Amino acid sequence: MSIFSRILDGSIPCHRVYEDDLTLAFLDINPLAPGHTLVIPKEAQATVMDLSEKSAAGIGRVLPRITRAACAAAGVQECNIIQNNGAGAGQEVMHVHFHVIPKSSEFGLRKQWTPRPLADGEAEEILRIMQASVEQE
Amino acid sequence: MSIFSRILDGSIPCHRVYEDDLTLAFLDINPLAPGHTLVIPKEAQATVMDLSEKSAAGIGRVLPRITRAACAAAGVQECNIIQNNGAGAGQEVMHVHFHVIPKSSEFGLRKQWTPRPLADGEAEEILRIMQASVEQE
Repeated sequence: MSIFSRILDGSIPCHRVYEDDLTLAFLDINPLAPGHTLVIPKEAQATVMDLSEKSAAGIGRVLPRITRAACAAAGVQECNIIQNNGAGAGQEVMHVHFHVIPKSSEFGLRKQWTPRPLADGEAEEILRIMQASVEQE
Repeated sequence: MSIFSRILDGSIPCHRVYEDDLTLAFLDINPLAPGHTLVIPKEAQATVMDLSEKSAAGIGRVLPRITRAACAAAGVQECNIIQNNGAGAGQEVMHVHFHVIPKSSEFGLRKQWTPRPLADGEAEEILRIMQASVEQE
């Protein structure tokens, strides 16, 4: 049982921003910027890969209003949404959570983005695997 | 009109992974890992803050299947979802897009995460602003 399950059942308090039947949004206690908020599904799943479409849609639905509210709290108009799946990808609590992080000049998030161009033959091979995976549903 | 509008109207090709009435998912041509996919709404909005709840829910709904497919393409079980709003936050194309990035040991995404603890008085002030913003809807 993760700490977020205990927040959901009320046994650990949180700074609640928003709640509906599918989702809960609350302040991150170690924020990268003022207004840094976590949006979680009430469904207890470790990763987005395991989440139901209903819960995932429920989170998507509230992201516009949560990002607006977080930006208002930080007094900025830019923000990042980040969601990590797996310890190796930076996930610390094994219950799905979306970070909404207003862009702060003071502290916060920095990204290192090191792409390489997509090769043509590579794209076809990747697509073959992905389209087969998507169509399995 | 952004390059993504031109992909949506078919005037620029893409490596299409998935499409439904609200969303399109296609390979990033400068991937951070094999299977790096962009999920975009058909609704043309620059940021999530401006996106309709319907489109935002439509994107959320497909994230589980797109993350599974991207992980399958990369042969990994971990991934990050990142969505940038505003040039200062790293957004390059001014049409909402969610990056689905399988975790690659070779190249890819690195994050610098520099939090500071949330102070108690700070939390109450932030919550006052955010709850007022959320309840405006």
